[in-house]
Amino acid sequence: MQTIKLLINYEGTHYFGWQKQTETKKTIQGIVEEALEKLCHQKISLIGSGRTDAGTHAKGQIAHFRIDELNPRLNLLMALNANLPKDISVKKAWLMPNEFHAKGSVIKKTYRYQIHNSKTPPALYHQYLNWVARPIDINRLNELTKKLIGVHDFKAFQNAGTDVAHTIREIYEAKWQNIENTSNIEFIVTGNGFLKQMVRNIVGTALDLYFEGQGPNKMSQILDSKDRTKAGKTASAEGLFLEEVIYPENLDRKGQEL
Amino acid sequence: MQTIKLLINYEGTHYFGWQKQTETKKTIQGIVEEALEKLCHQKISLIGSGRTDAGTHAKGQIAHFRIDELNPRLNLLMALNANLPKDISVKKAWLMPNEFHAKGSVIKKTYRYQIHNSKTPPALYHQYLNWVARPIDINRLNELTKKLIGVHDFKAFQNAGTDVAHTIREIYEAKWQNIENTSNIEFIVTGNGFLKQMVRNIVGTALDLYFEGQGPNKMSQILDSKDRTKAGKTASAEGLFLEEVIYPENLDRKGQEL
Repeated sequence: MQTIKLLINYEGTHYFGWQKQTETKKTIQGIVEEALEKLCHQKISLIGSGRTDAGTHAKGQIAHFRIDELNPRLNLLMALNANLPKDISVKKAWLMPNEFHAKGSVIKKTYRYQIHNSKTPPALYHQYLNWVARPIDINRLNELTKKLIGVHDFKAFQNAGTDVAHTIREIYEAKWQNIENTSNIEFIVTGNGFLKQMVRNIVGTALDLYFEGQGPNKMSQILDSKDRTKAGKTASAEGLFLEEVIYPENLDRKGQEL
Repeated sequence: MQTIKLLINYEGTHYFGWQKQTETKKTIQGIVEEALEKLCHQKISLIGSGRTDAGTHAKGQIAHFRIDELNPRLNLLMALNANLPKDISVKKAWLMPNEFHAKGSVIKKTYRYQIHNSKTPPALYHQYLNWVARPIDINRLNELTKKLIGVHDFKAFQNAGTDVAHTIREIYEAKWQNIENTSNIEFIVTGNGFLKQMVRNIVGTALDLYFEGQGPNKMSQILDSKDRTKAGKTASAEGLFLEEVIYPENLDRKGQEL
């Protein structure tokens, strides 16, 4: 048996998210699986590192599939991309040790959220940007989201519709920064895992508190409440990117690029 | 009479270019004119700095219109953007001296052309990138396009379908550079004017010569031939941005931001 790991980029605009659905809705997982099945002439089960919401993009989605043996004459990267639409691209492929599991082996994930902060809407790259018209000082946003770093129960930032065992996660980094030579700002957050719509809820809550003139203590109160109704809006999906998924170094080191 | 200057951004993907057409094709000029007419309750004629092709984007398109008097209670920027689709945005507006003319007053224009240079296609931002799979060394590209700097007859780089008085233009700058932290490269070219599809023909020809292993003298021969059939392919529209349109400083100085 062979285990193949894929690094997948996609623009999520025209998809109902990563995860295949019972209905006939178009999903990233569904489209990539279909292309793999066409190339491998067999049923393929593609496992992603996790779901991404409808409209959310990925620069670093990781997935794996297992197969008896890839056709050695198949240039998997080229053939896959030739069978994928313009908004999905497989950027790298590796032959991995069989203990690798795209979801089970994850140790960290990084998300990025982009905002066009200008009194006028973006137009260029609008598919990839949330728009906030009122001026933002990222220092104050950083004070608000700093409160989330560490091990916490993030129940207040979890949307309904999940059946996770527990809602405790660790956030290692959470920072806002200006993107040079643009009117854009970004929020970068790294953690050991994220609940459903957690990043969008953190961004939406931080912006709500910011414009209400609230301080960091209010963010702590919301976190402690474990009550979704205390937190703010869910920021729109279009600004969100699954940026990177990190696996144990000793596993990565055994991977062999195809 | 008042003369209003607009700075317009657009993603060109879903339009038949800037210029209004007799048929019912969707154009940027047509859409912005329509929004202006709705707000001003009268017929408006919007003049652009020049056409952009179907699929070409703009970060710096400039246009003007003349009107007896703008309603002083109208917040033109906000109202216009509220009446424009997501892929068109008016970023700034100025009240200008009446001698200003978006096309007639131009002294320089800058175009930018973006290429994703990677063995795999881009997916993210694919609407804004041409894709070249084979590795490119921008130093060799720069040697090729350096030959175009100066005053030349650019007839060999002009596509059919124009009725310009002459085909002599001056190129002030033409340079390729890597875009940091990406697999993208860009070509930036500034001139006193550009013929129909001239930038796309320069990019296409430079890439053709590059991959044929030709040197800068071949570029000079093509330029001297004044023969479109000697030049290379027209590079795709999606990588092209009208980046900036430059007017005389003394005119700009008299503009008053609205």
